[in-house]
Amino acid sequence: MNANQILLDSRPEGLPTADNFKQTSVQLPAITKGEFLVKNLWMSVDPYMRGRMIDRESYIAPFQIGQVLEGGSIGEVIESNNPQFPIGTRVSAMHGWRSHYVTDGSEHTRLPNTPMSESHFLGVLGMPGMTAWTGLTRIAALKEGDTLFVSGAAGAVGSVVCQLGKLMGAKVVASVGSDEKAAYLRDLGVDAVINYQTTKDLSAALKQAAPQGIDVYFENVGGEHLTAALNNMNDHGRIAVCGMISQYNDTAPTPGPNNLGMIIIKKLKIEGFIVFEHWDHYPEFAKKMGQWLATGTVKAEQTIYQGLEQAPAAFIGLFEGKNRGKMLVKLD
Amino acid sequence: MNANQILLDSRPEGLPTADNFKQTSVQLPAITKGEFLVKNLWMSVDPYMRGRMIDRESYIAPFQIGQVLEGGSIGEVIESNNPQFPIGTRVSAMHGWRSHYVTDGSEHTRLPNTPMSESHFLGVLGMPGMTAWTGLTRIAALKEGDTLFVSGAAGAVGSVVCQLGKLMGAKVVASVGSDEKAAYLRDLGVDAVINYQTTKDLSAALKQAAPQGIDVYFENVGGEHLTAALNNMNDHGRIAVCGMISQYNDTAPTPGPNNLGMIIIKKLKIEGFIVFEHWDHYPEFAKKMGQWLATGTVKAEQTIYQGLEQAPAAFIGLFEGKNRGKMLVKLD
Repeated sequence: MNANQILLDSRPEGLPTADNFKQTSVQLPAITKGEFLVKNLWMSVDPYMRGRMIDRESYIAPFQIGQVLEGGSIGEVIESNNPQFPIGTRVSAMHGWRSHYVTDGSEHTRLPNTPMSESHFLGVLGMPGMTAWTGLTRIAALKEGDTLFVSGAAGAVGSVVCQLGKLMGAKVVASVGSDEKAAYLRDLGVDAVINYQTTKDLSAALKQAAPQGIDVYFENVGGEHLTAALNNMNDHGRIAVCGMISQYNDTAPTPGPNNLGMIIIKKLKIEGFIVFEHWDHYPEFAKKMGQWLATGTVKAEQTIYQGLEQAPAAFIGLFEGKNRGKMLVKLD
Repeated sequence: MNANQILLDSRPEGLPTADNFKQTSVQLPAITKGEFLVKNLWMSVDPYMRGRMIDRESYIAPFQIGQVLEGGSIGEVIESNNPQFPIGTRVSAMHGWRSHYVTDGSEHTRLPNTPMSESHFLGVLGMPGMTAWTGLTRIAALKEGDTLFVSGAAGAVGSVVCQLGKLMGAKVVASVGSDEKAAYLRDLGVDAVINYQTTKDLSAALKQAAPQGIDVYFENVGGEHLTAALNNMNDHGRIAVCGMISQYNDTAPTPGPNNLGMIIIKKLKIEGFIVFEHWDHYPEFAKKMGQWLATGTVKAEQTIYQGLEQAPAAFIGLFEGKNRGKMLVKLD
C-alpha cells in the first residue's frame, strides 16, 4: 500500500509558498498485531501550524524539514489487527497531511455515530470550537449583558465565538476582512460588523460600533486590532488571547500597541491560552455543542479544498482570508 | 492665617519643569462649626500624579490648571471645632502641595500612635506599600519558590515588592538605574540585581540573572523592561502591571513590545490594577507591615526634600531616578 504525504521542504520566510511543501509517496508496512490501517477522509489546516514551521521553543515542537507535516485528521479504518478499532471505525487523530497510515491507535479517538458530517470534529465540535468555548468561559468569563469584540470573526474559531457570544447573552461586535464575510456574520446574528480592510481608523470604527465600550475582546489577530480593542475596553475588561494571525508571517518582529498604558488605567486582564490544557471540559462542551448543532442553534460553516495536493493552498489561504468558517481539505 | 500652596500652572510636555508649577499664598477662612485647621508635616510625590497632569479620562480626574495640586499628606490639627479631630491629632489625607488648610474632616484618617515616623503612612504603610502587597498577593498570586522580577526596584513600590517577595519565599531579581541603587537592593537581600542603564541587552541580562525563568513580573517601568520580561517568563507566568514610568513623559506614544506573541506561547496572564480598589484588605496589610517594620524585617528607605517649595523638584526627581525608596517632602 502506497501513501501520499506532504513534507515540510523548507521553512517559510513570510507568507508560505507552494515551494515550502513537497508531496511524496511512501510504501506503508503491513500491519502487525495491534495495528490498523487508516485511510484519511479529512484533514485540518489551522493558523497555529505556521508557528510550528519556525524552529523555536514553544508549547508544541517545531516541524522538522523533510518530515511529514502533522495536524488534525479524520479517517476510516480499512484494515485492522486491533479489536478496539475494527474496519469501518471512524477515528480522529493528529495524522493529517497524508492519505493513509499505519498506527497502533495511541492518541486516536473513535468518533461517535452522528448524522452530521464527521468533518465537524475538526471544526466546531473539535479544536476550534473548543477554543472558542474555552476562551469565552474559562479565560474571559463572558457574562450576559457584556459587549464582546471578536477579531478574525469569520474564521473557524471566530465564527463560533460570535455565535456562542450571542447564546451567552452578549452584544457581539465582529471584525472581518471582506464585505462578503461581513454579510455572513450578520446572517449569524452579530450586532455589528466592521470590515477592517475598508476601515481607516479601527479604534474609531469600534467606538462607533460599541459606544458603550468592550467588556471582552477575543483576540485572534493582534496588531492594530489589539490597539483598537485597548482603546475601547471598559474598566476591568478581559482579553482572551487566542492568536495573532496578522503577525504569523512577519519577517521582522512587529512593534506592539502603543497604548499598553490602558492595562493600568482600565485595570484590564489579558490572558493567553492553549486549548489543549483545557481538554478536561471537552465532554461538557461536546454535549452542549452537539445539541446546538443538531437544533441549528449554532451553524457550522466550512470552506473545503479537494484533494491532498490542495493542502498547501488551503493552508496558505488561511493567511489570505480565503476561508469562511473552518478550512478543511477533503481527501479523495 | 495664610497658607502657601502650589498650583499646576501649565500642563507639562515631556518631563515636567519648574515652570509647570506656581507657588502662591492664600488667606484661609476662620474655621466654623465642625471644621478644623491642619498644618501639613509631610507630603507625598508619586509617579501616578504625572498622569493626572494630562487632560484625559482615567481612573482619577485630571488636575486643572490654576488649581492647587493634590496628593497624599500627613498633617497635625492646630485649631479645631470638631471633637473628632482635637488639636494635636495627626491625620492623613489627599491634601498635599499646601502648608495649611481648613477641612470638615471628610476623607481624613486619624493616624494611630506609633513610635515610627508618621511619614511611613505615605510610604511603606500607605499607598505604595499597599500597592506592593496587592500586586504580589491579589494580582500575581506570588508563591513560595517562584522567581520574581521587579523593575523600578529601588522605588517606593519596588523596594517593598522586593522585600515582600523575599518574605514570601521567592527568588527576587531586581532592575534599577544605578550602581548605588543596585548596592541598596543587595543590602535588602535580593538574589540578583541588573543595572539597566549599563546593560546593553536587558533580555540577555535577565536570562543570566534568572536562568530558570520568571514566574512573576512586577511591572513598574514598561517598554524594554516588558519586552525582556516577556522573553524570560515561564509558562503560566503572571505580570502585575502597576506602572510604566518609562512612558509617563513621552511626547508621542511609544510602540509596545514586539514579542506579545509570548502571551499565547507561554499562556501568560497580564493584569493591571489600581490599589484603591483593593483597600478592603488594608487593615490586614497594615497589621502585618506594622510588625515587619517594628522588627526590622522590612526596611523603609526614604528620600526627603525639605520645604514646600522643593515639592516640584521632588516630583520631577521621580522621573530622574533621584529617589531611593519613598520620595517625600517635609514641610517646615
